[in-house]
Amino acid sequence: MSSFVYARPVRFEEVDAAGIVFFARFLGYGHEAMESFFGALAGGYHGIVMDRRIGFPAVHVDADYAAPLRFGERMQIVLDVTKIGTTSCTFRYRIYRDESSAEAEARVLVATVHHTCVCCELAGPSKVPFPEDVRALLEAHLCAESDGRH
Amino acid sequence: MSSFVYARPVRFEEVDAAGIVFFARFLGYGHEAMESFFGALAGGYHGIVMDRRIGFPAVHVDADYAAPLRFGERMQIVLDVTKIGTTSCTFRYRIYRDESSAEAEARVLVATVHHTCVCCELAGPSKVPFPEDVRALLEAHLCAESDGRH
Amino acid sequence: MSSFVYARPVRFEEVDAAGIVFFARFLGYGHEAMESFFGALAGGYHGIVMDRRIGFPAVHVDADYAAPLRFGERMQIVLDVTKIGTTSCTFRYRIYRDESSAEAEARVLVATVHHTCVCCELAGPSKVPFPEDVRALLEAHLCAESDGRH
Amino acid sequence: MSSFVYARPVRFEEVDAAGIVFFARFLGYGHEAMESFFGALAGGYHGIVMDRRIGFPAVHVDADYAAPLRFGERMQIVLDVTKIGTTSCTFRYRIYRDESSAEAEARVLVATVHHTCVCCELAGPSKVPFPEDVRALLEAHLCAESDGRH
Repeated sequence: MSSFVYARPVRFEEVDAAGIVFFARFLGYGHEAMESFFGALAGGYHGIVMDRRIGFPAVHVDADYAAPLRFGERMQIVLDVTKIGTTSCTFRYRIYRDESSAEAEARVLVATVHHTCVCCELAGPSKVPFPEDVRALLEAHLCAESDGRH
Repeated sequence: MSSFVYARPVRFEEVDAAGIVFFARFLGYGHEAMESFFGALAGGYHGIVMDRRIGFPAVHVDADYAAPLRFGERMQIVLDVTKIGTTSCTFRYRIYRDESSAEAEARVLVATVHHTCVCCELAGPSKVPFPEDVRALLEAHLCAESDGRH
Repeated sequence: MSSFVYARPVRFEEVDAAGIVFFARFLGYGHEAMESFFGALAGGYHGIVMDRRIGFPAVHVDADYAAPLRFGERMQIVLDVTKIGTTSCTFRYRIYRDESSAEAEARVLVATVHHTCVCCELAGPSKVPFPEDVRALLEAHLCAESDGRH
Repeated sequence: MSSFVYARPVRFEEVDAAGIVFFARFLGYGHEAMESFFGALAGGYHGIVMDRRIGFPAVHVDADYAAPLRFGERMQIVLDVTKIGTTSCTFRYRIYRDESSAEAEARVLVATVHHTCVCCELAGPSKVPFPEDVRALLEAHLCAESDGRH
């Protein structure tokens, strides 16, 4: 089991009128990490959706917000897979504010998102089992989540 | 108890590469309904945030996706309040695809979002009790949710 | 000749870290007005794109920003057509901040966007002449723009 | 004179119902490149806006769209500065679809955006001259644009 890590800064347009990242954007951040995660397969997430015509529509999402995130801060997203079924799986995205400096590494948990999606034929949509290579990648990142939800 | 209803069409730019509304947008749709809901107060949601300097950052969200929503379809969002505490509350947004025609009313449940937020001073942020008028509006839309989560 | 008018408030998530509407959003606002404008035709903009499989990709846009627009302010978008060719046309969106009160109407020009798009078959994309009903609607809103660019 | 280059893939949520990148997003792409460009200064773009309280609101934008860009394609943004005044400057973003393969480098021009902004105090907003370090960075990327608009 190993986590997949994706990092990037919060951009100028991603905050709301209260000056913090708009709460809905954390789902997009998670999806962005997931797109990058599938880069490990030939053709990437794009190849799965556009060439193989398989999609992963969400059936359930929950998000816990622990701290605000602001423009200019750098985020680190740690992706794990917490459940794998025949046709569905759950991704967990732990989003950290990276406060590393030259002297020390430090990060603060900002939000935890669980994202359950179902493997479907785009044309359908009807459920189909995960393709072998997708399943293998998911299993390589399966995590026990013994530590409660976080 | 009465529900607040907000409706609008899905726009051209709101879908993803699979051709359905991107899952994160449903949280934004709920927030949009909530902004409209607070229009019942003098100054509206804008007045609460920008003039009174009070915000409602999310602490928890969960979303169940029941059916896809597509460009050009009209959505109807039914907002209720399912919990009210001293400093926090939970909104429920039931998002329907409106399939009404001249002959008949019909709607399909597309997603249910629960959105728990905390009343905070923007300068803080530290929790504060809901102002009286905000609490009164929330209470006027409190709903038993006896029907499980939906 | 008559202008088409579309109005709505600026939403909580539409500003940037400087606290004003992010400059790219004005193009989306214009497109939103255009989608509403085509509601005059049976099937609306959705019917043109998804049923007739005709799209209007942009080939040129220019925008002049005259004043900032902020969360909670109400905008009014005045749509005119400034040019119609066989396969292309130019929309002009004048976006106003609505400052009307009980006593008086008042509005401030915030931005002017010109949006030139080409009528294409989605499958192609190859240029095609505007369908008759689309052309008739465009012509009904053709404007001389004798007043320079504004 | 040297160009600044910024690259990233088009993401799943960035297309519209016609299946291509929504035209307004190209302005956001340009801004994203600009934010990265200012990373050359201590504190970056964030430091300029949030710490020094200086902003660069847009006063004019024009965009020419040459070819569609799609989900999964990789873009390369080439940033140059085409004009520098005392209080304003123009950025040019040439956005390419990267079609490089193992055998050969290849790229297709997708859009060219010119973005004129004014240096302002956020509190004002009133125009102020560019700070010295900002001006030096802009001048290091000033380009003749002898080749017409592209």
